[in-house]
Amino acid sequence: MQRKPIGKTRWAIAEGYIPAWSSSDRRELVSHETACLLNAGDREAHVAITIFYAEREPSGPYEVTVAPGRTLHLRFNELRDPEPIPPGTDFSSVIESDVPIVVQHTRLDSRASDLALMTTAAYGE
Amino acid sequence: MQRKPIGKTRWAIAEGYIPAWSSSDRRELVSHETACLLNAGDREAHVAITIFYAEREPSGPYEVTVAPGRTLHLRFNELRDPEPIPPGTDFSSVIESDVPIVVQHTRLDSRASDLALMTTAAYGE
Amino acid sequence: MQRKPIGKTRWAIAEGYIPAWSSSDRRELVSHETACLLNAGDREAHVAITIFYAEREPSGPYEVTVAPGRTLHLRFNELRDPEPIPPGTDFSSVIESDVPIVVQHTRLDSRASDLALMTTAAYGE
Amino acid sequence: MQRKPIGKTRWAIAEGYIPAWSSSDRRELVSHETACLLNAGDREAHVAITIFYAEREPSGPYEVTVAPGRTLHLRFNELRDPEPIPPGTDFSSVIESDVPIVVQHTRLDSRASDLALMTTAAYGE
Repeated sequence: MQRKPIGKTRWAIAEGYIPAWSSSDRRELVSHETACLLNAGDREAHVAITIFYAEREPSGPYEVTVAPGRTLHLRFNELRDPEPIPPGTDFSSVIESDVPIVVQHTRLDSRASDLALMTTAAYGE
Repeated sequence: MQRKPIGKTRWAIAEGYIPAWSSSDRRELVSHETACLLNAGDREAHVAITIFYAEREPSGPYEVTVAPGRTLHLRFNELRDPEPIPPGTDFSSVIESDVPIVVQHTRLDSRASDLALMTTAAYGE
Repeated sequence: MQRKPIGKTRWAIAEGYIPAWSSSDRRELVSHETACLLNAGDREAHVAITIFYAEREPSGPYEVTVAPGRTLHLRFNELRDPEPIPPGTDFSSVIESDVPIVVQHTRLDSRASDLALMTTAAYGE
Repeated sequence: MQRKPIGKTRWAIAEGYIPAWSSSDRRELVSHETACLLNAGDREAHVAITIFYAEREPSGPYEVTVAPGRTLHLRFNELRDPEPIPPGTDFSSVIESDVPIVVQHTRLDSRASDLALMTTAAYGE
C-alpha cells in the first residue's frame, strides 16, 4: 500500500467560527468546524495548532497526532487543551506539522432546520 | 479543438464523507461525495485512487480511466473495487494520474429535506 | 485607481453542472453555475472557454471580453455560441485569457425550496 | 506564543455579491459577504481593498488594519469609506497588505428561511 507523503508542513485557515447552536443533537448533525488532516506518509505527524482571535492573544498550541497512513477529521468544537474555543466567536488557525500533511477546512451549520455546508483547501506553504 | 493538458499528476482531498442517508432517491439528489477529474490533454489518463481512513489501513488502488478531452465526475459512493467506502465514515483520498489532470471535490448532502453543497479545488503537487 | 494586473492566463474548473430546475424564476434565485472573471489590469482580457463533457467532444471556444478594471460573473447557463450547455449534464471548463485574470467558480442551486451555495478558487497555471 | 508570519501580500477574490435581503435580523444570521484576514506575524498589517464592478470604475481603497497575532472577519456589507458596496450587485476585490496575511472568502446567504454557506481560500500571489 502506498505510503508516499504529500502536502506541506505549515497551513493556515483564515476563516473559523463555531455556530452557537444546532437543530439536532446527533453527532453527525451537530454544527461543527473541522480541519481534515491527511497524513499519507509513513511517519507519525505531530501537529500543533494555534488559534488566533479578533480581540485577544492567540491560544495554543493544541497538539494532535496523526498516525502514518491515516486521516483525522478534527472538530475545533472538541478541542479542550489548553482551553475550549468559544462558540459564536471569529477565529483563525495555523496548523504546523513535522512531516507533510494536507489540510482542508469544512463547516457544517445546522442552526436552521436544514443543513449548510462549506469547504476549502487550506492555504499551505 | 484544444487538447493542451492542464493540471498535475498527484492530488489529495483531505475531506471525505458519504452522508449515510438521503431525502430523495433521484440519482441527482442522492447524497454524494464526488471527485471531478478533468483530462484536457490528448492522452488517456490512468488514475489510481487511494482511500485513507481514521482507524484502519488505506484501501486501494481504485482504478479509473479518463479519456482524452473528457471529464469524469466520479462518485466515491459508487466505487466497488476493491471494496465500497462505508457511508458515515471519515476518509481522505490521494489521486494519482500518469498524465496531468485537474481535480475538484464536491459534496451534495440531501439528508435534510433541502440540499447542502460544498466544493473545493483539491490540493495538487 | 489601481490597475495592476493579478492572476494567471490559464484556468480550469473540473466541476460543472447546471441544475435542471429552480424553485424560483427571479434571476438572482434561478439555479446557476458561474465563472467569476476579474480583470484587475489595464488591458482588455480576451477570454476563450472550452467545455469538456463526459461522453462527447469538447465544445467551444466560447468567447467573452472583460474590460480593464472590471469583473464579469459569467453564467454558464447563458452561453449560447457555439451552443448552449445542456442542464443536468456533467462538464468541466478550461478558461484561457490573453492577459492575467483571476477565476472563481460558484454554483447556486435552488432546486429545493431553500438555496444551496458552493464556491472555489479555480485551478490556475 | 508563535508570531511567525504566514501568507502573501496580494490577494484577489473574483466572486463578490451581497444578498439583497435576509430572513433574520440577528447579526450572525444576516446575509453577509466576508473576507477573513489572518495576520499571524508580529507587525501590524495595513490592508487596502479595491472593489471591482461589472459596469463602473473600481472603488477604493478601503483601508483596514489587522493587529499582530489577530484575525479580522471583515464584512463587505459594513464597508462605508469611501462608499458602501450596493447589495445585489456583482463585484470582485483585490486585497493588498504591507505584511504577509492569509485571506479566505465566505458568504452566508439567509435570503431563504434556511442558510446557505460557501467559502474558499482566496487567490494569492
